[in-house]
Amino acid sequence: MSQINSNKFITDNFLLYSKEAETLYHQYAKDMPIIDYHNHLSAKQIAENKPLQNISEVWLHEDHYKWRGMRANGIDEKYITGSSSNKEKFFKWAQTVPHTIRNPLFHWTQLELKRYFEIDSILQPATAEEIYAKANEVLASKTPADLLQAMKVEVVCTTDDPTDSLEYHQQIANLEIFTKVYPTFRPDKLLLIQENWYLEYLEKMEQQVTFTIKNLDDFLTAIQSRVDFFHQNGCRVSDYGLEQIFAFDFNKKDVEVIFEKRLKKNSLTMDEANSFASFILYELCKMYFGKGWAQQFHLGALRNNNARLQEQIGADAGCDSIGDKEHAVSMSILFNRLDRENCLSKTIIYNVNPSQNEVFASMAGNFNGGGIPGKMQWGSAWWFLDQKDGMEKQLNTLSNVGLLSRFIGMLTDSRSFLSFPRHEYFRRILCNMLAEDVKKGLIPDDLNFIGKMVQDICYHNAVKYFDFK
Amino acid sequence: MSQINSNKFITDNFLLYSKEAETLYHQYAKDMPIIDYHNHLSAKQIAENKPLQNISEVWLHEDHYKWRGMRANGIDEKYITGSSSNKEKFFKWAQTVPHTIRNPLFHWTQLELKRYFEIDSILQPATAEEIYAKANEVLASKTPADLLQAMKVEVVCTTDDPTDSLEYHQQIANLEIFTKVYPTFRPDKLLLIQENWYLEYLEKMEQQVTFTIKNLDDFLTAIQSRVDFFHQNGCRVSDYGLEQIFAFDFNKKDVEVIFEKRLKKNSLTMDEANSFASFILYELCKMYFGKGWAQQFHLGALRNNNARLQEQIGADAGCDSIGDKEHAVSMSILFNRLDRENCLSKTIIYNVNPSQNEVFASMAGNFNGGGIPGKMQWGSAWWFLDQKDGMEKQLNTLSNVGLLSRFIGMLTDSRSFLSFPRHEYFRRILCNMLAEDVKKGLIPDDLNFIGKMVQDICYHNAVKYFDFK
Amino acid sequence: MSQINSNKFITDNFLLYSKEAETLYHQYAKDMPIIDYHNHLSAKQIAENKPLQNISEVWLHEDHYKWRGMRANGIDEKYITGSSSNKEKFFKWAQTVPHTIRNPLFHWTQLELKRYFEIDSILQPATAEEIYAKANEVLASKTPADLLQAMKVEVVCTTDDPTDSLEYHQQIANLEIFTKVYPTFRPDKLLLIQENWYLEYLEKMEQQVTFTIKNLDDFLTAIQSRVDFFHQNGCRVSDYGLEQIFAFDFNKKDVEVIFEKRLKKNSLTMDEANSFASFILYELCKMYFGKGWAQQFHLGALRNNNARLQEQIGADAGCDSIGDKEHAVSMSILFNRLDRENCLSKTIIYNVNPSQNEVFASMAGNFNGGGIPGKMQWGSAWWFLDQKDGMEKQLNTLSNVGLLSRFIGMLTDSRSFLSFPRHEYFRRILCNMLAEDVKKGLIPDDLNFIGKMVQDICYHNAVKYFDFK
Repeated sequence: MSQINSNKFITDNFLLYSKEAETLYHQYAKDMPIIDYHNHLSAKQIAENKPLQNISEVWLHEDHYKWRGMRANGIDEKYITGSSSNKEKFFKWAQTVPHTIRNPLFHWTQLELKRYFEIDSILQPATAEEIYAKANEVLASKTPADLLQAMKVEVVCTTDDPTDSLEYHQQIANLEIFTKVYPTFRPDKLLLIQENWYLEYLEKMEQQVTFTIKNLDDFLTAIQSRVDFFHQNGCRVSDYGLEQIFAFDFNKKDVEVIFEKRLKKNSLTMDEANSFASFILYELCKMYFGKGWAQQFHLGALRNNNARLQEQIGADAGCDSIGDKEHAVSMSILFNRLDRENCLSKTIIYNVNPSQNEVFASMAGNFNGGGIPGKMQWGSAWWFLDQKDGMEKQLNTLSNVGLLSRFIGMLTDSRSFLSFPRHEYFRRILCNMLAEDVKKGLIPDDLNFIGKMVQDICYHNAVKYFDFK
Repeated sequence: MSQINSNKFITDNFLLYSKEAETLYHQYAKDMPIIDYHNHLSAKQIAENKPLQNISEVWLHEDHYKWRGMRANGIDEKYITGSSSNKEKFFKWAQTVPHTIRNPLFHWTQLELKRYFEIDSILQPATAEEIYAKANEVLASKTPADLLQAMKVEVVCTTDDPTDSLEYHQQIANLEIFTKVYPTFRPDKLLLIQENWYLEYLEKMEQQVTFTIKNLDDFLTAIQSRVDFFHQNGCRVSDYGLEQIFAFDFNKKDVEVIFEKRLKKNSLTMDEANSFASFILYELCKMYFGKGWAQQFHLGALRNNNARLQEQIGADAGCDSIGDKEHAVSMSILFNRLDRENCLSKTIIYNVNPSQNEVFASMAGNFNGGGIPGKMQWGSAWWFLDQKDGMEKQLNTLSNVGLLSRFIGMLTDSRSFLSFPRHEYFRRILCNMLAEDVKKGLIPDDLNFIGKMVQDICYHNAVKYFDFK
Repeated sequence: MSQINSNKFITDNFLLYSKEAETLYHQYAKDMPIIDYHNHLSAKQIAENKPLQNISEVWLHEDHYKWRGMRANGIDEKYITGSSSNKEKFFKWAQTVPHTIRNPLFHWTQLELKRYFEIDSILQPATAEEIYAKANEVLASKTPADLLQAMKVEVVCTTDDPTDSLEYHQQIANLEIFTKVYPTFRPDKLLLIQENWYLEYLEKMEQQVTFTIKNLDDFLTAIQSRVDFFHQNGCRVSDYGLEQIFAFDFNKKDVEVIFEKRLKKNSLTMDEANSFASFILYELCKMYFGKGWAQQFHLGALRNNNARLQEQIGADAGCDSIGDKEHAVSMSILFNRLDRENCLSKTIIYNVNPSQNEVFASMAGNFNGGGIPGKMQWGSAWWFLDQKDGMEKQLNTLSNVGLLSRFIGMLTDSRSFLSFPRHEYFRRILCNMLAEDVKKGLIPDDLNFIGKMVQDICYHNAVKYFDFK
């Protein structure tokens, strides 16, 4: 492939196609702080407060988006997740970048080079050496907290297992840094009673709660204790990552028997496992309501499709994709169960299959109430949809079916400390879209009013919604 | 939220972005009469021929779109469906309107203010008092029939239960008003044999037909009698609102037994109920064919998700949303059953889930025939999709998969006498879309030809298709 | 319907809306040869090397797209597939063309008239006589091979049953013509063990392999023998057209019993038939891998919906439509089975339901590997989606979820020798889309680089991917 000739790719008005868009972005959106209410950053790395070593580690050690891009480009696995050196991997990535044109990876790469390293050149074989050196030089002097502060990240919510000791979050709370770092309660493992590791996992729970789990009530007590503990450590939001919501019938008596069967290492039927998961999910949701938390549901990914790579690399190997199962009825059942007992929390639902956009957007609208603006949120474009088209579709459908003005906006969902320009990306897209509407007479020609709406979506709505600390 | 500064929102060329679009709309579309072949207007209100009392009643007493918007905006239920005064409710709605920017509610609100009341200001707290007074003043002097005539509504098809006496339609027929008002036969309840109210409902049928329904043949005779009666009263179209089409296997002998079981108050299995519904649906379709009616299927809504609000308010509480079930096979089975016996009527299918657009558009194409242009129609964007994006997608997919030129066009599907500017909204969108195509060389640069196609879609096609009276 | 006044519809810059688009198309795309790696052309017609008789035969005898258009336009079946003369049918088609505005049929028709016959006028009743005469005159002097060469078609892959003798392909190999014509192995019938014709079909296989199929191993030997034979005749690609991929559990012992049951004319359960199909599909895929072939899966069409027309005309009567079944899990199972045994071939998956676009695009990304650029392809917009919107959506989603630069591009999938301007259509759309991105600063402003990417997508990628001969 030939070389790309281009002096500067990320300009001041990248993605902004009118004066109105420039005004909205530069005067209203750009300087708003960031509330990144869902991501997969390592609290340990923040707590340790040491500079990241190498751009290759930050970019390539955990980023399954880039891995997929490299595999699609015919790069050998050795240079992706294999034993090659950081530098070799970086160069293979540089070789792949020109092939990612029109993929969000191309924009993300250039935007991150620009914002964190002031690099304008396009990453490609001809520029790889220079960019590798420059990025590593900059990184050497910055801790994760520095990188977060540089992007005005006020709040970060990591994603944590109920058995996590939260020691790193506690250490961070004692650091004098700009960014607040809170845990998110992500109890997926609690639901999966049929998995081989389940009893071992219960032992981990027991270690945290310091009592033995002998029956279902013990288990619920243990869970509540972990919810309390997370709350004490600043947690105000939970999360699930499920193929579908468990919304099967259950009654507590049966679930008690199921749980004890499992404790005795008896095998369960699929029906039993589903009843159990549905019950625990419901009880969890009630606990969150008791704490005033928000709850998130990331639904519909089909995970670990490739057994060969999973055996080689483990989960999150870049072999997850978009599922096509139904979601409407199970969401309806769960939310209705909670709502009719007046214990439905603020809820954010995310779909990974965009053909479900309208289903999710309209489902959220069924359960608003209690005088909370935007109580039921249809979340930001997620994972495969976290790109310009995906965001525009999410914003458009949300606008058509719900209230855009009440949207709590963007999050990175990332494992990388360099992903925060995705908020900028979102803000530019949002501002441009609204500017187009102003120009077309689709919304009132009052940039001050629209600008304030932009600020709400970028920042204020999330602040009010989560009410951290 | 700050105030919106804007002098005039609805301009003459609202939604029209080129000279070609202006020509198509103003010279061809604008003055065409309206055939509103599907809505939920109250025949009683037309028959009574009295002015509507209050803008709040017209806008807020039954409009679940606005209710959802208000709930999403954090308005307390008291001000939505509760005991607050008309004025209080109107002010809460005025407070919500600025938050609906980008939602169709914003455009509909402003368009209705403009067309019925000549109000240009944007509804918001600062203008609420004045608008409330002005709208009520205008309303006080206009009957429903006046409002219909003002929008050139030639035909209105209401939606009526088979047990309806049609007394109001008969009264209307004797009024000297511009608009023809016909009933639509909507027999959903006939299918739902398992519902608690079913036997009571049969009694209502018996009262109308003045004989006792002792077995399935009696039941079919009763239904046929109601079809005849509706036909005598001008009905030329039926409608269903179903989650999915019932297309299970059945044979008449079994269905006789099922029906008699139910008459004896025995409970039925799901299979039995499905067989019954599939049989009755099929028989109904044949009866319509016998009358030369068109039949409509509104498919895929997931209704009454929120039990709390349903218990409080009843059905149509604004807690319905978009379902994600399959439709292709069941549509295919029913239409094929009818077609192979040469009793498939003109048929209009509507989907509420836009990810089904292509499934519905292409399914319609399987069953055209008999020399009727556009016999199988994929209906206009419906419910949650009845907005600019939704209409554009419907028009685009219809164009790609079928024949736009044979489309019978828009309908309001509304409960409000103020909803008719939605036809204008549709026409502007249609004209603008075709004008863009002309400008891009995608369709021939002959505005007279395209303008006549616009007139067909806005009016003539529906006139020919339904052949009322 | 009135007449369309238009001098010239297909201009040099049709579908190109910027200087950049013109440059990309005219300087890079236009002159690239065509690799049409999937279509339904008749090898017999090419081998016979005789001029096609009549535009009506070429356009209307097998084109179910046009049939659907005519039926939707209210044309009587007599003039579509019935006993009318070629000329009568052509005139009914001419009458329908103006009604197809915005449908791809309109563009295809005009583009074919322009490219093959240098006709600029729009086909409509007023021009039908002249166009009919002129097209027939041109056709009289051109063989199918001439028509292919005129469009620079280097490679054509027909679609052939495993029992096909390939005699025409062998004859073609001996002709001195520009275009290489290869067979494609399409073994759908091998899977459908429950069909009435299955045992007869096995007899056809036996005739080709010249031994008796007495058990499952014989059957596998026979299939392998046909794969070998196709390979000798230039075949490098297989294809399936399935409603869903068969990915049920199986074990060979059971499948042996199932096969023998069928040989003895015993009836099978659905489960048995599914196991059998899943086994044979898997074995076929392994055989292709052994040959280095690519494999194609065309998934999700719901076929033969209209029994009346099927009985009258047979399969492919224009009564197929878009299905809405799930595909993610079954694709995942099959590809994973193959991948973990290291026998997953280069694979192209096509969906006919566009709401599955992201599911398919992301599924492909799970199974890349082995250092083959673009090993897993999400194929070009197919069937109902083979139009401007459909192509744009496919290109956009592919870009967002995969690597556009590695895409192997367009194919006609057509039964007509006049369909090759669809490559031009695709190329114009591709060039315009990339040009828009350049103009918007979404991709680097380096037309030489982008132009080479265009050439890869239009030609080079397919050449490398299939590696014919």
